[in-house]
Amino acid sequence: MAIDGLMDDLAFLGERVTRARPVLEHHGQSESHIHSRLPDAVAFPLTTEEVARIAAACTAHGVAMTGWGAGTSLEGHALTPRGGLTVDFSRMDKVLDVRADDMFAIVQPGILRERLNEELRATGLFFPVDPGANASLGGMAMTRASGTTAVRYGTMRDNVLGVTAVLADGTIIHTGSRAPKSSAGYDLTGLFVGSEGTLGLVTELTLRLHGQPEAVSAATCGFPGMEAAVNCVIATIQTGIPVARIEFLDEASVQACNAFSGQNLPVVPQLLLEFHGSPAGVAEQVDRFNEIAQGFGALDFIGAKAAEDRSRLWKMRHQAYPAILASRPGATAVVTDVCVPISALAQAVSETQADIAASPIPGPILGHVGDGNFHAILLIHPGDEAELAAAKALSARMAERALRLGGTVTGEHGIGMGKLAFMEQEHGAAWSVMAAIKAALDPKGLMNPGKLVRQ
Amino acid sequence: MAIDGLMDDLAFLGERVTRARPVLEHHGQSESHIHSRLPDAVAFPLTTEEVARIAAACTAHGVAMTGWGAGTSLEGHALTPRGGLTVDFSRMDKVLDVRADDMFAIVQPGILRERLNEELRATGLFFPVDPGANASLGGMAMTRASGTTAVRYGTMRDNVLGVTAVLADGTIIHTGSRAPKSSAGYDLTGLFVGSEGTLGLVTELTLRLHGQPEAVSAATCGFPGMEAAVNCVIATIQTGIPVARIEFLDEASVQACNAFSGQNLPVVPQLLLEFHGSPAGVAEQVDRFNEIAQGFGALDFIGAKAAEDRSRLWKMRHQAYPAILASRPGATAVVTDVCVPISALAQAVSETQADIAASPIPGPILGHVGDGNFHAILLIHPGDEAELAAAKALSARMAERALRLGGTVTGEHGIGMGKLAFMEQEHGAAWSVMAAIKAALDPKGLMNPGKLVRQ
Repeated sequence: MAIDGLMDDLAFLGERVTRARPVLEHHGQSESHIHSRLPDAVAFPLTTEEVARIAAACTAHGVAMTGWGAGTSLEGHALTPRGGLTVDFSRMDKVLDVRADDMFAIVQPGILRERLNEELRATGLFFPVDPGANASLGGMAMTRASGTTAVRYGTMRDNVLGVTAVLADGTIIHTGSRAPKSSAGYDLTGLFVGSEGTLGLVTELTLRLHGQPEAVSAATCGFPGMEAAVNCVIATIQTGIPVARIEFLDEASVQACNAFSGQNLPVVPQLLLEFHGSPAGVAEQVDRFNEIAQGFGALDFIGAKAAEDRSRLWKMRHQAYPAILASRPGATAVVTDVCVPISALAQAVSETQADIAASPIPGPILGHVGDGNFHAILLIHPGDEAELAAAKALSARMAERALRLGGTVTGEHGIGMGKLAFMEQEHGAAWSVMAAIKAALDPKGLMNPGKLVRQ
Repeated sequence: MAIDGLMDDLAFLGERVTRARPVLEHHGQSESHIHSRLPDAVAFPLTTEEVARIAAACTAHGVAMTGWGAGTSLEGHALTPRGGLTVDFSRMDKVLDVRADDMFAIVQPGILRERLNEELRATGLFFPVDPGANASLGGMAMTRASGTTAVRYGTMRDNVLGVTAVLADGTIIHTGSRAPKSSAGYDLTGLFVGSEGTLGLVTELTLRLHGQPEAVSAATCGFPGMEAAVNCVIATIQTGIPVARIEFLDEASVQACNAFSGQNLPVVPQLLLEFHGSPAGVAEQVDRFNEIAQGFGALDFIGAKAAEDRSRLWKMRHQAYPAILASRPGATAVVTDVCVPISALAQAVSETQADIAASPIPGPILGHVGDGNFHAILLIHPGDEAELAAAKALSARMAERALRLGGTVTGEHGIGMGKLAFMEQEHGAAWSVMAAIKAALDPKGLMNPGKLVRQ
């Protein structure tokens, strides 16, 4: 079998390549409702050169390669529907260089988001992209992750300046430069960010860093209804207030978060906000936001200036997923993600709420509304096929609704295996262009097969 | 001949396709020192569908296709070294839609930058990317243009949300969505932006718009030396002051601008600045910049708050190129462009100044220093082969210096024909990946051949 030959060629990894059943099973699971066969083996490389040898060996034996970061993907990106080798980057987790003067860092893909920012703390800089989960930077780049701070600092597209990638045949390439911008040829960095491991295995990332804000202020702001909250977001963005975070929780989400985190936010649609800037700038932003919020009938604006209050607020937001899971005892979730033009956001959320209300399952809604991006956490009992079918149908209608309103079927979770069915509808002939690019870089179709492109 | 067959197939364009010599000659010229053969014919389409028919016909006859915007490229992007058909977009110059709520506009590629902003004025929004020349938006997208405001608002990479493109075989694709972000597949928008017409002909662009700033203030600030000015820029950026523009002029550039525009800026290295924000925010930015500038020995800070003073200042900056040309009577110029990590900027400028000083020709330096991007305008007498050789050698050494310092051979002018020779040095194996992508989308090599990729 191909895998036996591959294992011989990977002997140089010693104990860092394995076919042990528990390891395969760990890498055959995901945060999604998607199931797939297990990988045939798992490798734990330490260097770019090792990854290049692994890729060349996989190509020689015709074995598929799938990268693994922290296992937090929600669309089955790191699963192995065709088996093959999982390349686990958890031991490539170093910060290789920090250039504070030029405001970038070079990291290995396995480093986790929270640890990166711990390592950066003393430099006065930080990496802002925050998808909630303590994901790996490699995984975040591959799904083009974003999250709570994208409204101010952008997504991974905006914050990855270059990558080192290993192509299927073991060729090592470097994209981007260390200059702040370039017009020298195709934007290969941008092509790799969001490519879900289908073009190559990324082994290093150059990340744009930002100055830690001098002053930070957070707040919650309740509204009499979802439309008022969302319209307040639209006005805030259009006015150009550079909010660092502006998150929406519907009533069901607020209830779940209160119960889980011991908070007592009023159970109405809430915005959670953060403002970054100079002390005077932050104060001005807060005033301006407040003025807009009053115009939309805001019920209360509760500031959280002290670091510990802010930390409690964002801990609550980051725990929204387990909190919502806990709101239906024994439940698991189908987590969906769509993104629409901001002018269509109230309509998209309202139609989705009505659709969920008419379904047999609960589905709290929350999201990064400054970007037009929201999620429904569709709660189902494990093993209940009718509920799973209902959740999938709701999720599909959300995706179709987003497309009808000019949006996209995923703002930040990616396609993986979960949303392949919508790619043709969203992209038309451009999906075939993606397949052509994939075939040009990976002619044997060995890089994370079964994801993103038609194969 | 292939071109005769093509002309038959393009008869549907009526008088909007021509082989008239003056038209061919107009499209065989450029702002660069690069010469090439003339196109065989020029077409003036009006719609995406016409461009699709043109492309299909060119492919059927094996004729090359090269887009033409406003003819302002500095690296020969729109020249036709292999002849073929030039597709002139000057009649596709409409704003098709403005969605003020969602802060985007859909435009045809032939619209010129200044007219776009005139059409947007009443909406309270503007398109910020400003390369100086009154370029076409299509051309700006294809070279990944940036300019004076990129330090605040980003480059074309950041401000094009989607394109409609016609591939070589006439297939029409749409990239991007109208949502503010997406994780749905490869970033084809980013791939097309900066592709220099080598992957397809872009026929529509969705552009990100920004709110017109409530308050604007501009200033000039002179320094005792280049290093002081550049180090002040570095500190300003690192401090996180969101300057909207921060431009550098060396003494020779100041002298030329004074003479051409009737100004009397002190003949020392100057920074030209603009600040955008709320009235209080702008005042704070000015104060903070001033504090930093004092620390670097700034000689004078001359504010330009009134609209007419600002307009005079930026008119002078925009006329720097003709001003510098006029500083050596009868001269033409080799205009170069490099970009380096901002920490290497003082060294890059200083070594370049010394290199130019040791050469037989003058070469004022100016640039968008907030991005690490600067230009030398190398002044030569037309027909003087020795001077042209000296200018080319200086330009080549600038490119190599930029690479040595971790930068890129072009920050904003692009590769075109002028910088092909540096692509392998900058990108290594990644240049072959670009060629593979090109071949996947344009297997017959008919889209703007002789530019950007190895062919």
